[in-house]
Amino acid sequence: VIVTFLSDYGLEDEFVGVCHAVIAGIAPEARIIDLSHGVGRHGVLEGAVVLRNALPYLPAGVHLAVVDPGVGGERRAVAIRAADDRVFVGPDNGLLAPAVEVAGGAVEAVDVATSPFRLEPVSSTFHGRDLFAPVAARLAAGAALAEAGTPVAVDELTPLDIPAPRRADRVTYVTAVGVDRYGNVQLDVDHATLTGAGLRIGTELAVDGRPARYARTFADVAEGTMLVYEDAWRRLALAINRGDAAAELGVRPGDTVRIDTVRVAQP
Amino acid sequence: VIVTFLSDYGLEDEFVGVCHAVIAGIAPEARIIDLSHGVGRHGVLEGAVVLRNALPYLPAGVHLAVVDPGVGGERRAVAIRAADDRVFVGPDNGLLAPAVEVAGGAVEAVDVATSPFRLEPVSSTFHGRDLFAPVAARLAAGAALAEAGTPVAVDELTPLDIPAPRRADRVTYVTAVGVDRYGNVQLDVDHATLTGAGLRIGTELAVDGRPARYARTFADVAEGTMLVYEDAWRRLALAINRGDAAAELGVRPGDTVRIDTVRVAQP
Amino acid sequence: VIVTFLSDYGLEDEFVGVCHAVIAGIAPEARIIDLSHGVGRHGVLEGAVVLRNALPYLPAGVHLAVVDPGVGGERRAVAIRAADDRVFVGPDNGLLAPAVEVAGGAVEAVDVATSPFRLEPVSSTFHGRDLFAPVAARLAAGAALAEAGTPVAVDELTPLDIPAPRRADRVTYVTAVGVDRYGNVQLDVDHATLTGAGLRIGTELAVDGRPARYARTFADVAEGTMLVYEDAWRRLALAINRGDAAAELGVRPGDTVRIDTVRVAQP
Repeated sequence: VIVTFLSDYGLEDEFVGVCHAVIAGIAPEARIIDLSHGVGRHGVLEGAVVLRNALPYLPAGVHLAVVDPGVGGERRAVAIRAADDRVFVGPDNGLLAPAVEVAGGAVEAVDVATSPFRLEPVSSTFHGRDLFAPVAARLAAGAALAEAGTPVAVDELTPLDIPAPRRADRVTYVTAVGVDRYGNVQLDVDHATLTGAGLRIGTELAVDGRPARYARTFADVAEGTMLVYEDAWRRLALAINRGDAAAELGVRPGDTVRIDTVRVAQP
Repeated sequence: VIVTFLSDYGLEDEFVGVCHAVIAGIAPEARIIDLSHGVGRHGVLEGAVVLRNALPYLPAGVHLAVVDPGVGGERRAVAIRAADDRVFVGPDNGLLAPAVEVAGGAVEAVDVATSPFRLEPVSSTFHGRDLFAPVAARLAAGAALAEAGTPVAVDELTPLDIPAPRRADRVTYVTAVGVDRYGNVQLDVDHATLTGAGLRIGTELAVDGRPARYARTFADVAEGTMLVYEDAWRRLALAINRGDAAAELGVRPGDTVRIDTVRVAQP
Repeated sequence: VIVTFLSDYGLEDEFVGVCHAVIAGIAPEARIIDLSHGVGRHGVLEGAVVLRNALPYLPAGVHLAVVDPGVGGERRAVAIRAADDRVFVGPDNGLLAPAVEVAGGAVEAVDVATSPFRLEPVSSTFHGRDLFAPVAARLAAGAALAEAGTPVAVDELTPLDIPAPRRADRVTYVTAVGVDRYGNVQLDVDHATLTGAGLRIGTELAVDGRPARYARTFADVAEGTMLVYEDAWRRLALAINRGDAAAELGVRPGDTVRIDTVRVAQP
């Protein structure tokens, strides 16, 4: 059985290692795949998008995700079974929602805050270790979801609030959902959605007022030029060839970006 | 069999990966759990505390730890069996001592500097690869401790020198033993030890002269306010809500911190 | 079966995790060892040297390496079987060449750009996920090399262009091939090659005009002093005791360093 693990813990400290140890102790046969621990601190939106994008590439199993600014507070902790039988474990703050959607939607959910699988005493700051990792491990080891906690109606699960793209004739507003270490900015929109805006290769754009070009890849524009392109997740993204688009535009996950169509390329 | 691995090697270079490869070559059945490789360079105290704290969460096995400022010099290299049968491998510089204590104390130890398990030629700078990883792997694969080196009396093992908390009526001096990536500072003292100082929730303190409050969690104090709280390892820690306590106070592992009780909260 | 994995993806993003997931999905029995993902971005030379140096410590298997500035362009993507039966997978840009040489040289190679093992659609930017990881996984799972792509003559594989050391009487020019996180600079030359230059322990040198000393280890020179020493890979390296030689000299991988013999130590 596979347990995938995403968090904002980083790798400087022992947080990730201790969660691995807890899982290995409870479910020695489970294989843990670290999807990423470099999600920005408290970056629920960013983590949710990473998990959603990656899901089609992840073997089915238990998907543990911990980006949890509300740890120790009132937010619910959940385990969710999706229509395709994948199981998700984490805080109920929207982090899991887009991936659950990709997995066909939630069909069963439990509140695990007082799960019999938790490690006592549960600390107020490290639920990854005390709550989420042991629940994920027990589920990976074969426990039924219903044993992990108390039932929650699936329509009461917290959605992730990403504003949908808004489009007028030549102007589109889209949400930035991720920034990679090169400063490339992923937008929550795909090519098809923007086609109406005349997004043909070579089209001249303005991104937050700055000249850009819709291109297939970095090498198609001059160094220092901004481009909009379809990234490896089939979403549109912003980049500057050999530069850092996020820094240049001051864009962070959750921000809205304005894209103007300046001149449509001729076919 | 589990091999846990802690070091100050970082993940930018190939040091950790090569040690993994060496272990996998010698003990293909062993599972390696990276506890942390983000210990500050040469941070023996910091690494020792991480290993000690995490130990109760680690499946029993071989615990490899390499924070080794004296590599290539005179310091002893050891493998130690503890009362609970856990085995520890690393430099004899105090790094292993607190964890061995938690494991019930040392019952058998060997000097592995010229271990038959080492990889020849042993480099003068990378004993993780040439000495500690192969010794850990052979022990994980079932070799007896006595085969790994020459006997060392357990009372000759190097202890870790952490000054104990000193307490007067309203003043306590404690040692900072760790700083996480958020700047939270772990202190080498638990709640019970400080209870005599009136450390009730809400008590006003001064930490190195700066106002602070004993609180249950971050959200209980205003943004920018310093707090003392019980952390996930059941030790006391310093933090600034939404801030960086270590940077603010200029505290690093090994430093002494002064805590004054200013006004005890009423029950 | 072992799959080793080296890249310049870093660990901040999900690139490495997704490749792990792809491999685990295709070859569940394969064990993945992360050699390093901290190679400098687009650092083909640096990555090639890391892989070559580490190879003798890696269990035989499939060696996946992705440092790929030409991704999406014309460069060939290959899988190579070496004389010792190790298999290498990656871009044909010199990255694999020195390791293949250590493995006895290439005996069979295929172009995998349109491999039947690739994941469709292949993105233009993430060949690690769509091409190299699935090819490596299928080979690890037992597929024959010939099934992975179309034959390439082994003498048409791209070599890595590292200038050989040039030596006059008292002056040697060598190539810097790596910089670790401490600023130590690995040179592409071994002790034997420089022996003619009188490189006895204690010999006074000048490195790019700056005084240095040939020493066995850091502790043999004063703090702040530059030394040339034999590193853990049996190559010569530059360091400053308690300092950062790369920063001080402004040296990066690929740069040429001049070493003058100033005064040979007496035996």
